[in-house]
Amino acid sequence: MKPLGIGLIGTGYMGKCHALAWNAVKTVFGDVERPRLIHLAEANAELAAKRASEFGFAKATADWRDLIADPDVDVVSVTTPNQFHPEMAIAALEAGKHVWCEKPMAPAYADAEKMLAAARASGRVAVLGYNYIQNPMMRQIKTLIGEGAIGTVNHIRVEMDEDFMADPEAFFYWKSELASGYGALDDFSVHPLSLLWYLFGHVEAVITDMVKPYADRPLKEGGRRNVENHDGANVLMRLGGGISAVLMANRSAWGRKGRIALQIFGSKGSIAYDQERMNEFDLYQADGRGSEQGYRKILAAPAHHPYDRFIPAPGHGLGFNDLKIIECHELIHAISGAPSSIVTFEDGLRIEKSVHAMAKSFHERRWIEIA
Amino acid sequence: MKPLGIGLIGTGYMGKCHALAWNAVKTVFGDVERPRLIHLAEANAELAAKRASEFGFAKATADWRDLIADPDVDVVSVTTPNQFHPEMAIAALEAGKHVWCEKPMAPAYADAEKMLAAARASGRVAVLGYNYIQNPMMRQIKTLIGEGAIGTVNHIRVEMDEDFMADPEAFFYWKSELASGYGALDDFSVHPLSLLWYLFGHVEAVITDMVKPYADRPLKEGGRRNVENHDGANVLMRLGGGISAVLMANRSAWGRKGRIALQIFGSKGSIAYDQERMNEFDLYQADGRGSEQGYRKILAAPAHHPYDRFIPAPGHGLGFNDLKIIECHELIHAISGAPSSIVTFEDGLRIEKSVHAMAKSFHERRWIEIA
Amino acid sequence: MKPLGIGLIGTGYMGKCHALAWNAVKTVFGDVERPRLIHLAEANAELAAKRASEFGFAKATADWRDLIADPDVDVVSVTTPNQFHPEMAIAALEAGKHVWCEKPMAPAYADAEKMLAAARASGRVAVLGYNYIQNPMMRQIKTLIGEGAIGTVNHIRVEMDEDFMADPEAFFYWKSELASGYGALDDFSVHPLSLLWYLFGHVEAVITDMVKPYADRPLKEGGRRNVENHDGANVLMRLGGGISAVLMANRSAWGRKGRIALQIFGSKGSIAYDQERMNEFDLYQADGRGSEQGYRKILAAPAHHPYDRFIPAPGHGLGFNDLKIIECHELIHAISGAPSSIVTFEDGLRIEKSVHAMAKSFHERRWIEIA
Amino acid sequence: MKPLGIGLIGTGYMGKCHALAWNAVKTVFGDVERPRLIHLAEANAELAAKRASEFGFAKATADWRDLIADPDVDVVSVTTPNQFHPEMAIAALEAGKHVWCEKPMAPAYADAEKMLAAARASGRVAVLGYNYIQNPMMRQIKTLIGEGAIGTVNHIRVEMDEDFMADPEAFFYWKSELASGYGALDDFSVHPLSLLWYLFGHVEAVITDMVKPYADRPLKEGGRRNVENHDGANVLMRLGGGISAVLMANRSAWGRKGRIALQIFGSKGSIAYDQERMNEFDLYQADGRGSEQGYRKILAAPAHHPYDRFIPAPGHGLGFNDLKIIECHELIHAISGAPSSIVTFEDGLRIEKSVHAMAKSFHERRWIEIA
Repeated sequence: MKPLGIGLIGTGYMGKCHALAWNAVKTVFGDVERPRLIHLAEANAELAAKRASEFGFAKATADWRDLIADPDVDVVSVTTPNQFHPEMAIAALEAGKHVWCEKPMAPAYADAEKMLAAARASGRVAVLGYNYIQNPMMRQIKTLIGEGAIGTVNHIRVEMDEDFMADPEAFFYWKSELASGYGALDDFSVHPLSLLWYLFGHVEAVITDMVKPYADRPLKEGGRRNVENHDGANVLMRLGGGISAVLMANRSAWGRKGRIALQIFGSKGSIAYDQERMNEFDLYQADGRGSEQGYRKILAAPAHHPYDRFIPAPGHGLGFNDLKIIECHELIHAISGAPSSIVTFEDGLRIEKSVHAMAKSFHERRWIEIA
Repeated sequence: MKPLGIGLIGTGYMGKCHALAWNAVKTVFGDVERPRLIHLAEANAELAAKRASEFGFAKATADWRDLIADPDVDVVSVTTPNQFHPEMAIAALEAGKHVWCEKPMAPAYADAEKMLAAARASGRVAVLGYNYIQNPMMRQIKTLIGEGAIGTVNHIRVEMDEDFMADPEAFFYWKSELASGYGALDDFSVHPLSLLWYLFGHVEAVITDMVKPYADRPLKEGGRRNVENHDGANVLMRLGGGISAVLMANRSAWGRKGRIALQIFGSKGSIAYDQERMNEFDLYQADGRGSEQGYRKILAAPAHHPYDRFIPAPGHGLGFNDLKIIECHELIHAISGAPSSIVTFEDGLRIEKSVHAMAKSFHERRWIEIA
Repeated sequence: MKPLGIGLIGTGYMGKCHALAWNAVKTVFGDVERPRLIHLAEANAELAAKRASEFGFAKATADWRDLIADPDVDVVSVTTPNQFHPEMAIAALEAGKHVWCEKPMAPAYADAEKMLAAARASGRVAVLGYNYIQNPMMRQIKTLIGEGAIGTVNHIRVEMDEDFMADPEAFFYWKSELASGYGALDDFSVHPLSLLWYLFGHVEAVITDMVKPYADRPLKEGGRRNVENHDGANVLMRLGGGISAVLMANRSAWGRKGRIALQIFGSKGSIAYDQERMNEFDLYQADGRGSEQGYRKILAAPAHHPYDRFIPAPGHGLGFNDLKIIECHELIHAISGAPSSIVTFEDGLRIEKSVHAMAKSFHERRWIEIA
Repeated sequence: MKPLGIGLIGTGYMGKCHALAWNAVKTVFGDVERPRLIHLAEANAELAAKRASEFGFAKATADWRDLIADPDVDVVSVTTPNQFHPEMAIAALEAGKHVWCEKPMAPAYADAEKMLAAARASGRVAVLGYNYIQNPMMRQIKTLIGEGAIGTVNHIRVEMDEDFMADPEAFFYWKSELASGYGALDDFSVHPLSLLWYLFGHVEAVITDMVKPYADRPLKEGGRRNVENHDGANVLMRLGGGISAVLMANRSAWGRKGRIALQIFGSKGSIAYDQERMNEFDLYQADGRGSEQGYRKILAAPAHHPYDRFIPAPGHGLGFNDLKIIECHELIHAISGAPSSIVTFEDGLRIEKSVHAMAKSFHERRWIEIA
């Protein structure tokens, strides 16, 4: 496969993360061609030029359509705010580019459907940025479950909590507007849902409660404004095979910084994981002498591929940004037609469908089945 | 107050725990009269005599009505299986005894109501054994919440998990019969509900899902029998003041031995606690410089009364049985008319009402409001 | 064996702990006679009477010699400050009593030798209060090592830290006087040394450094007084079989409350334990697939005898005072001639010999071999 | 400053780590010129070409002297086995290149001295790869200590443990030869010593014990060979200001994978850190109400510069390789004459001097003062 030409739209949190991945993927993995960093788009020309220089891109533009029109660009990283995803991703796909779009697809389900339609029509690879599934620890958990290490899974709990909106006197900003979405439900829950999908498949039925810890927030210009969506969501769920699950998401959870805590119970053991300590997980297996049974704390190690591509010694730890490098590598494999572990637009749409069903079940105060 | 004469019915897990408490309470606290261990009842005379000798009781009987008729007995500890609680507790109350009955009150709500009626009619102290609320750590958590240390509480999660029924090939026994109750819901949930009640008051609305991880279990005599109730229960709840809560209980949770994990989120901080490490809790307060904020792990210490009555040095640890000694001390205070922290039959009935509402919400697949 | 008559001298921290054990041992274990609490001695008659009432002793005295002369007393608990141990223990032994004396034996080695001589001459059971070895977790660790679960042990680290002297502006008190001993070395190190002895036998060679974090302390009456001993001690050691060990003790270690952290490394695995979480330990075994190796956190359970005598369910936790009940039970076994796990005066003297050798190695700045 | 031209000698564990850093430093930090990856040297031409392609270097050579002679190369990363460091580093310095050499400088102290002499003579920047000091957590710890957050430090403990040599039946290889060094002492201890130096300055006096857990090891060709050096080392140390410290290093410590556990005790608090969880540390401050004192677990966050350059959200975690990117950034600053936090050859020589003194103190069984 010839080297891929890369375009990057957006250079914030995730834009930089993509740039780091495109810069590092060849050095880490060796088995792909070094990507050619062709074109970078930002909101204005000055910032675009600055970031292109920093991130190593050859060209910069204030008009993302230039980038999509660039024949040297084969793949487009879309890392802009969510409302721009549909237009950009669809344009890129229509221009014959592969697309690597940050999650979620779109605030409106209909737009997400259009994105999938465009992906199907294009025949190109269209992937969503759900990097937590790329953690070698998560891969090992999937392997263990597949091997029957904890028997048949019957119950799952997953919590996703941060505290960036926990201060009731922080100024009102767009994340508290209804236009931005349901709140924690779409802002957060797609991450744990991607993990559930990766490990167990899709959600089949849900009932949701949502939490609005603060009725209003101060405005910078004085006065207060009502909070329009919900910072917390709690969901009872059923997955295939009769698995019951509980999802709890909260972006006003003081003290939690990047918690995605997963507990998986099976007929022969259980597994616990927390993203705040992403280089370890706990495994309990109900075998051997009872007096020595206990949760085993397993540290990330070269045996957990592809940790070995980063560090040849165990226990030294990957970082959050490394997960994006792994995702980038999977994407390149997908483009080359090799087997890969990614979240396609098809998978992603199904995740977002779950989220909308959850919101509906809250408003209608009843269980909703997801087709 | 003259020394109390004690009667003990039942000498299993909780019976022994009561006996230890009656033996120790004076030595630990000093400020009460040493109880006189008068009468012990067990299923047969031989066992009754053996246990009376072990536990230090003067008289033994195979007929618990002897004990209740004993004029030297002032307080009766009822620690028999749940179905016997109503008859024994009511008889004791009618005989003018104070009653210290293990939780839950009764399998049937109507029986629990009769117990409360008997307590009211008797004018005696009628207390339920909910010892987790007696942990000095839990008291400190209550104090902190009352002081506003974490602001206004808006969200709570509580998990109660053990694994004594996690093995699918363990023989069927009575805990899997419907006659014994709903399963985890009443077997377990009353404990976390007692903590929620102690800290925040009663539950107002619920919706429940229940989990039956194993459809059937082997019989000792060969063949298999259907499991009739549910080893897991997950409940979305609303408490007063708009607090949302999630309760998860599971007695087939491999790896969990005595977990009661509580997370409490407020507008200024949060608290986390796990009964498996009952001598510590974590406190997060959103004050001071951001670079040094974090969960503070607080070890049990003499500052957490009445830890100081047991050990004058911090960090040395109380045990599960010590909580019953504290409960015993509170009971004696209640009998003497002093302020005390106990779960009365009135409180206990309200807890059990919640449990029945949870079961109903599962069967009817809808939210239930609790009057 | 007829019931033992008990005498208790001293009712402070350890005196109360002994009293609780004597009150509880029969109820917990069942297999011994209920001790008869005969005689209690304290510094003055009023306090003696008060404590006798609280602790359940029949007689009280301000003269401990009365207690030793009491023919109904078979065993004497000696829980007074260390400097009184020799006189009291020797008098008790000479009067034909068994002795249960708190550690350490005596500030001066010559006095400790006299205590051993008296014990030998008496033919009575003379035991030291080293309750940490009674923890069921410690017993399980010993069992595991004996079974070869971690292969041949080659290296050990043990830390004992508290912070009751960590405040440099706390008033000078007797623990900073040279007359009270070396400081952390004798005040603390005997505890970890008892664990090392219990698990591996005696120390053979040592070199020590000692730490005086604060040169002086304020006096209540104004002015300051020089601190005369050392709050910290660090020791390199050799045990039998070429095992290297490091001992660190510090009573000015801010944040540590009751830490006794033990790490044991062998040719096939390792074990870690911390007294601040006395109901668990970590076991690493280098077997099975590398990708799932890790430290297993083992919670106290009925499989760890005699935890089962206290609680029939796993993970519920013993407390510090429960260890003394187990020690009491072992003592009764020893008196009855049954096998028991205790620290005799003989063992204790050898532990104290190590401590004095450590102090010598510090002052002479060289390795000392212990005969 | 014009872009630096980079040469890389060696492409193993550390070579790849350097390559990742040179590729990422501009994207992460933005404030430097993007390095030009000029020349890569490996043991043979084929491997050199392969790695140059993977790592993004323009030229490849099997003769490292070509690289040093390359006028486009400004900085040379030396990541070969330790015995090659002196020759390569000195040649590079003599050719006017800046040098970034992995630790330790050289097996023989005299060679390390020559390296420092060459650095001084060259006037170039000569830096050692001690990346653990670059962890934002470690920087925050240094800041806190500097601010007096834990008062005057009086005692330190540091443990460095891995288990790659813990299997006694693993084949003998060069790390067990005396020619490779003392064993854990130089292989490992330089890392914790770099942390002590970074935080507190140099070691002043030492006494050492060393541990050889296995006398011999099997040979691939059959038979066994004596182990010639020591897998474990334990050192009592004194630092400036009367600080006592204990250093423990062990490369046969089953279960430990990348442990560098640091405990720092001061007059007002304490700090604990473990490299296996490199995104957090524990801080205890003896202020506020006693009932809420405890170790605060602080997660890595943007407030801990330069974490913010990698990730704008707290609690998401850096990885081991990210530390090398930070070190690379500091190196570029040093070359440009800006203030920087690095370990120069001068500092590094002093660290290695400590190591040799430790070895001497072991062989002579006595305290050694370090000038």
